[in-house]
Amino acid sequence: MPADGARSAAPSFLYVPGLPAAGGRVTLPADEARYLARVVRARPGDMVTATDGEGALATLRLGDARDCSEAVVEAATREPRSREAVLLAGAPEGERGDWLIEKLAELGIAALQPVETERGGWQALERRAQRWERIAIAALRQSRRAHRLAILPPMGLAAALAELRAGARFLADAQGRWAPAAPAGIGTTALAVGPAAGFTASELNQLADAGFQSVRLADARLRTETACLALAAWWAAAGGSPGPVS
Amino acid sequence: MPADGARSAAPSFLYVPGLPAAGGRVTLPADEARYLARVVRARPGDMVTATDGEGALATLRLGDARDCSEAVVEAATREPRSREAVLLAGAPEGERGDWLIEKLAELGIAALQPVETERGGWQALERRAQRWERIAIAALRQSRRAHRLAILPPMGLAAALAELRAGARFLADAQGRWAPAAPAGIGTTALAVGPAAGFTASELNQLADAGFQSVRLADARLRTETACLALAAWWAAAGGSPGPVS
Repeated sequence: MPADGARSAAPSFLYVPGLPAAGGRVTLPADEARYLARVVRARPGDMVTATDGEGALATLRLGDARDCSEAVVEAATREPRSREAVLLAGAPEGERGDWLIEKLAELGIAALQPVETERGGWQALERRAQRWERIAIAALRQSRRAHRLAILPPMGLAAALAELRAGARFLADAQGRWAPAAPAGIGTTALAVGPAAGFTASELNQLADAGFQSVRLADARLRTETACLALAAWWAAAGGSPGPVS
Repeated sequence: MPADGARSAAPSFLYVPGLPAAGGRVTLPADEARYLARVVRARPGDMVTATDGEGALATLRLGDARDCSEAVVEAATREPRSREAVLLAGAPEGERGDWLIEKLAELGIAALQPVETERGGWQALERRAQRWERIAIAALRQSRRAHRLAILPPMGLAAALAELRAGARFLADAQGRWAPAAPAGIGTTALAVGPAAGFTASELNQLADAGFQSVRLADARLRTETACLALAAWWAAAGGSPGPVS
């Protein structure tokens, strides 16, 4: 409970894009206001925590509106994303994208770059883009993170490789060598997983030329979304970066 | 293709409980026979690979029955499970068990021990037991493993701890120290994850007394099923055990 005795509507953790700096007023998104009013039963003056998903973490004080739609930023800090991972992924089969998005967001992957490959495309993405945005935001709230998973527009492999920042690069590959320890330090790590039918030899060559090291994550072949998750978990477990809001 | 020119109905990989030794005749389960006849369009004399899920790997030659219901074991080997992991897990929320089962099976976990805890029980299990068996078997086929995931009957924590074999023990814990390298060698590793609402202090004490070391797997709190999967992936990535059938 805050020192001045205001009630804290913890464990509320809101996603509020465009959060202003301390002292600023903000209109809460309709979903968040509804959640506060109906689920948390928050009241004017209550304190809640919010992020903009871009690194800002703020304490908000709810205004007088009974629908919880307005708040003032009491304090705000910015969490640097010092260690981050970007995942280049071929399309999984069927409806398996939903929980892939949720799990990548929970594990703290910075961005999912869907990759159009010779053996599989992300046709599902267009149809599910809004759903996946909602899932990523729900996972952000759930895990109380300051940074949200960015779901990037699909690209071909060559274009996706050209966009990558410098850093270590790993490809999930059942034929690769057993995975070493993942990079623990500051910087961007790129991860890559093929589509359900696998990358072609030509695509594997492109990845090797771009410096991707093949790593084996299990003693059997994994489905695309399982390999994405295993690679993300492997990267996440080697962390040591600043902790989340508790 | 086998040396004698018999057609191989690869990539068929069948689950056939009770596989006999080489030379034995076997009646294939109805699901497997239907798959061979309708999807693979296998013919009498075709060769297929099968496992009993208990470590046996066999090459079968289909008999003359047009419904693919009979076969002879041409050759059989037994894969030892030299490195294995057992997961003690509190219940996840809602319908999240389905993909948990699938992913644990793909990653090669030996057994899921559902644990009844003070803050959550496995009510879903009774209703979904048959579905989960089917999912575990489908994942066995998909990953061409010789060992299937055993889904054990739920137990209280004390009873589950009493059943454990000797070996390293790890508890997923957002407040734990960052995970070290998982044990790579031969032996049984026990993994534990609390239910959605967490283990109680008393349960955490029981786990500590049983030698469980708290490990942190990500820089934020993970949902139960995500922690199960991250812990399983962390264990799987430290492998080096004999490879799968390729």
